Amino acid sequence: MAQKPSIPKGTRDFSPVEMMRRQYIFETIKSVFRTYGFAPLETPSMENLSTLLGKYGDEGDKLLFKVLNSGDYAVGLSDNEIRQASKICEKGLRYDLTVPFARYVVQHQGELAFPFKRYQIQPVWRADRPQKGRYREFYQCDVDVIGTRSLLCEVELVEIVERVFKALGIRVALKMNNRKILFGIAEAIGHADKMMDITVAIDKLEKIGLEHVKAELLERGLSQEAVDKLQPILELSGNNWQKLDKLSEVLAASETGLKGIDEMRTVLGYVERSGVTLPVELDLSLARGLNYYTGAIFEVKALDFAIGSICGGGRYDDLTGIFGLPNLSGVGISFGADRIYDVMCGLELFPEEVNCTTRVLFVNLGEAEETAALPLLRELRDAGVAAEIYPESSKMKKQMEYANRRSIPLVVIIGSQELENGSATVKDMRTGEQRNIAFADLATTLCSE
Amino acid sequence: MAQKPSIPKGTRDFSPVEMMRRQYIFETIKSVFRTYGFAPLETPSMENLSTLLGKYGDEGDKLLFKVLNSGDYAVGLSDNEIRQASKICEKGLRYDLTVPFARYVVQHQGELAFPFKRYQIQPVWRADRPQKGRYREFYQCDVDVIGTRSLLCEVELVEIVERVFKALGIRVALKMNNRKILFGIAEAIGHADKMMDITVAIDKLEKIGLEHVKAELLERGLSQEAVDKLQPILELSGNNWQKLDKLSEVLAASETGLKGIDEMRTVLGYVERSGVTLPVELDLSLARGLNYYTGAIFEVKALDFAIGSICGGGRYDDLTGIFGLPNLSGVGISFGADRIYDVMCGLELFPEEVNCTTRVLFVNLGEAEETAALPLLRELRDAGVAAEIYPESSKMKKQMEYANRRSIPLVVIIGSQELENGSATVKDMRTGEQRNIAFADLATTLCSE
Repeated sequence: MAQKPSIPKGTRDFSPVEMMRRQYIFETIKSVFRTYGFAPLETPSMENLSTLLGKYGDEGDKLLFKVLNSGDYAVGLSDNEIRQASKICEKGLRYDLTVPFARYVVQHQGELAFPFKRYQIQPVWRADRPQKGRYREFYQCDVDVIGTRSLLCEVELVEIVERVFKALGIRVALKMNNRKILFGIAEAIGHADKMMDITVAIDKLEKIGLEHVKAELLERGLSQEAVDKLQPILELSGNNWQKLDKLSEVLAASETGLKGIDEMRTVLGYVERSGVTLPVELDLSLARGLNYYTGAIFEVKALDFAIGSICGGGRYDDLTGIFGLPNLSGVGISFGADRIYDVMCGLELFPEEVNCTTRVLFVNLGEAEETAALPLLRELRDAGVAAEIYPESSKMKKQMEYANRRSIPLVVIIGSQELENGSATVKDMRTGEQRNIAFADLATTLCSE
Repeated sequence: MAQKPSIPKGTRDFSPVEMMRRQYIFETIKSVFRTYGFAPLETPSMENLSTLLGKYGDEGDKLLFKVLNSGDYAVGLSDNEIRQASKICEKGLRYDLTVPFARYVVQHQGELAFPFKRYQIQPVWRADRPQKGRYREFYQCDVDVIGTRSLLCEVELVEIVERVFKALGIRVALKMNNRKILFGIAEAIGHADKMMDITVAIDKLEKIGLEHVKAELLERGLSQEAVDKLQPILELSGNNWQKLDKLSEVLAASETGLKGIDEMRTVLGYVERSGVTLPVELDLSLARGLNYYTGAIFEVKALDFAIGSICGGGRYDDLTGIFGLPNLSGVGISFGADRIYDVMCGLELFPEEVNCTTRVLFVNLGEAEETAALPLLRELRDAGVAAEIYPESSKMKKQMEYANRRSIPLVVIIGSQELENGSATVKDMRTGEQRNIAFADLATTLCSE
């Protein structure tokens, strides 16, 4: 009895239509990355567990997929040792692209030209509980520059966000903040020690509202006085420049805070002068969870589709320190391909040509007809048009159904009548319209459409 | 103490230069696949072990990478059960693209339009002993059509081979044979029962020579008489048509053999008429190891570089039977990306532009100069030219070194003199040549080069 085939939960097959759409997204993003001088990089799917463990917190360690040592992995081990995965597994699947990137930079530091600008588009794996929109295998799409503190890099990332989403046709807004400003706020309200608690709580502002954030801050051990001081900061109004002006009074005593304000002003100044039309908003409640951010943080949301953040990132000052190369500052962002895909499907933004793989199908009506069709088919392919002939002379109905199911827009029919006239009948499957085109003109006519 | 970072043996990082070259190969192959109406497909990296086990022989089963169940995998299991990987691992990493493709076709048969034409370019993993040219993670690049017995598909694959290698600039020869002919030969020498032994032995003809093949055949239990009958068949001379004519006499009593000859004649006839200039040779010693081939088999070798087969494949009549869908005939070939890469490096076939990611670097000489550079940079990017500015106003020497290490061909210098004149100095890093271009003409001039 044959087994009924299935795939592991949380994983996906990508059908041709899905693949065409995904490739369209990746190609669009890649071509923008390239325009800015970012170069592609790929790292192995498996990393040594020593590279991965301890980099994503205790929770992350549990979510690593571990790969069993090959060969006689259990020889010479006690039963107890085998129960500890560490003895039977030395490799794990990539959990994100950031840690392998840091590992790569440290391992190859001698060969690299710094600042090193790379992009990386590869799948990652997480042993998370699968649920709607959360998968155990999914692609990340990262772009980073490492080895410079120049704020021009932040500006380039803003421009990249603008170009990518303009090319994809998605209207977005970019929110920015700066970790140094967040630290300054923590200092200003007398809780420099509770920076993490404060950022975690205020990051939820949009989701749970001010009152709940205040309650959480009290729970996390902030004094009522500190919370009272925080509220007006979170409620600062006006445009970015007005907010920064007011903030520089509030944070006057915090050197780090003022540094953050200064960075923010520099970046926003560049952005304004460069003619970026993307709305960029300073949002003091934006914190983003990842601990390694130390400067600018970014988050992008679609304006016409509710799905959460579709792109985000920030500056980190010591990503490579854990692998022995301290003080290498970098900044990067990551595009959420799955969510971008959902937004584009929801808003029907994929261009029509992305939904079809073959543009022209030659119907196959027998040997003589086939013989006439093959050179025409070759002409089309020579011109780069995706074309095929139905490989068997099956019933016309079956072949037309095939064209329909494959969403092939143009069908070329060469029957005995057409053979005699030296011209093909071309049917547009979208409109049902039919026309006659002489064999000699077929390739040029269909190419130019 | 920070750990010294490394990657698991048999795996690789792909640097930007390697990636650019690999992408060039994959993009070239993909665009040919698309021209023939093949659509992209991706399957998960992890498959259920039940899908993978027993599909690659005992040796293959041992080479599967198994993924440890996540969570408390060992709870409730006896020590003995844990020693059997089957209880603690339910998933394995993809070993090739063929079995997942068969699994996909069976699982999604209701949604697919047959014949189903797909290509798939993804990594696979094998726990083989790593050695030169053999990796534990490597990409496969497969193209298959399933659901038709039409020999037009074989012809299309020959054309695809021709187009791909012509586009890459590699001179190749294609060898073909047919499993039915091999079976006919086994019948003709009185050993239909030993078809596998015969194919395994004669597959080595080129490597070990006729005498050793004969010795191996005797060892494998063939009679001296059978071996004596085989020799003249392997030594058939003449062009393809002459070989087939002689063969049809030798195999006159084998229905299957004659069927194979007939298929071969049909394919070669189409190939000749279609204007293919690629040399196609009928090679009766070509067998290819994979058991599931039942008709045509293909193998491609580079003419100017010794590296073994760089592409191969064949027709199979029952790939999906193991998953419960019998009698679905298909044919496909696989391109060996790593070997193609080595051939192209060895023969220096990569176009120059593949070796550089950024075309234009703006040197950064300070705030005023930077302010003049940024709008020019933007113009170039708008025109799709990969351009960047050095993010810090470091020493000129450092910035020029960066351009050299990144193989950036054009450097734009805007210093105080250039600011005054409203024109930039453009240095060609390949020739050392310098010229002056007015700011207003810079983008159009550099775009058109």
